[in-house]
Amino acid sequence: MAKYARFETDDTQSYGIVTGDQIAELQSGLFEPMEVTGRSFPLSAVKLLTPCTPSKILAVGLNYRSHVGDRKVPETPEIFYKPVSSLQNPDDAIVIPPDALDAHFEGELVAVIGKTVSKATREEAEAAVFGVTCGNDVSDRNWQRGAGKDLQWWRAKGCDTFGPLGPFIVTGLNYSDLALTTRVNGQILQEQRTSDLIFNIPEIIRYVSQYVTLVPGDVIYTGTPGNTRRLQPGGVVEVEIEGIGTLRNPVK
Amino acid sequence: MAKYARFETDDTQSYGIVTGDQIAELQSGLFEPMEVTGRSFPLSAVKLLTPCTPSKILAVGLNYRSHVGDRKVPETPEIFYKPVSSLQNPDDAIVIPPDALDAHFEGELVAVIGKTVSKATREEAEAAVFGVTCGNDVSDRNWQRGAGKDLQWWRAKGCDTFGPLGPFIVTGLNYSDLALTTRVNGQILQEQRTSDLIFNIPEIIRYVSQYVTLVPGDVIYTGTPGNTRRLQPGGVVEVEIEGIGTLRNPVK
Repeated sequence: MAKYARFETDDTQSYGIVTGDQIAELQSGLFEPMEVTGRSFPLSAVKLLTPCTPSKILAVGLNYRSHVGDRKVPETPEIFYKPVSSLQNPDDAIVIPPDALDAHFEGELVAVIGKTVSKATREEAEAAVFGVTCGNDVSDRNWQRGAGKDLQWWRAKGCDTFGPLGPFIVTGLNYSDLALTTRVNGQILQEQRTSDLIFNIPEIIRYVSQYVTLVPGDVIYTGTPGNTRRLQPGGVVEVEIEGIGTLRNPVK
Repeated sequence: MAKYARFETDDTQSYGIVTGDQIAELQSGLFEPMEVTGRSFPLSAVKLLTPCTPSKILAVGLNYRSHVGDRKVPETPEIFYKPVSSLQNPDDAIVIPPDALDAHFEGELVAVIGKTVSKATREEAEAAVFGVTCGNDVSDRNWQRGAGKDLQWWRAKGCDTFGPLGPFIVTGLNYSDLALTTRVNGQILQEQRTSDLIFNIPEIIRYVSQYVTLVPGDVIYTGTPGNTRRLQPGGVVEVEIEGIGTLRNPVK
């Protein structure tokens, strides 16, 4: 097991290996042979960034029975894209556009791809997982399915800052059974284990890769459990996943 | 007016300025001060690539009345995303997945962004256009709206090779009134002027930028006119736009 982050200090952005409350700077990215520079910082002294810089972001809808509700359970993963411009760093604000009338949090386990995969078998899909992190798939319900519904979810899921990600990528974790908790202003509003995912991470990757090639650093938000609520400016959302950490973002 | 391409020769990928049938190699990308290396090649001697490498690809649905048909004309641009993995070079094959039952061509004018824009005015949006190129927004109608409909268009519009782009980016062209022609095996199947776009390029950029920040190299497929047809393996699709050139791709 190892824990990675991307961070900024002295106007330089680097990847690093996290041990306790220290981060050891890497010379390289995460998807190549890693070598440390020898510099190390207290985590509290650096600005944490999204833990990788994906070429694309996929996400799964309706992937927990507790969230599907009265809707039909999908027979295959229901995928959509979020643009890379929607990514937001840990601790930076989710900014709700003035005409987004019903923007909700969605706490999610996120898979980080470590190998290029196309038309993968189940085993190849499993081997393509580099690690996992926390994500918040912020979603405006009005643009998604309300009176202001767009044809596709480009605004509902894709506005700037609608994709908080991080803070850590953890490798070697049994991601198929982790506690996921979402809190707003300290109150628990989502609580579920990732063992309840309808389509687990290897199955999602196997399926997606039949059509779309995945490359190192690409991320897949795996879906949100239970119910979500409207985000209120001034609030703070936390997505905590067992063994990974807590992704915290204020709302503006 | 200037014409640019990206190309490969001797295993090196470069941008270049096209004059007649020659391409002059650039040291740099397109969105920074340009300097030539002094090397020049006949166009016929190099492999043309997608003319830029976008961080994201946006596309507009239902943007010509001739394509909207009986459907409601949108009040605002109907945007969706294609993943960057869907890009395909000029002359390389559109590969139809075996279970894509009804994959169609869509010949389109594509805008290439030259400046970072967020919450742009109409004037800022117009100034953010670097140039225009040709695109083919390949779309499987079964996954888009048939019996095999997905919740979102991730496969319908996003499979590997479903985004041919190029061959040239032309700057300084009056892109608001160009002839667009799509041919399959030499037969004209789409023919319209870009003056018939419901939402023109500056308006699309202005609108998108209220929600999603656009950066240099991002591309927007502006929509397809008239009717489309199913692509047949062995065929060749050509999207020709006046003043730009012809994007040609075989179908596998």
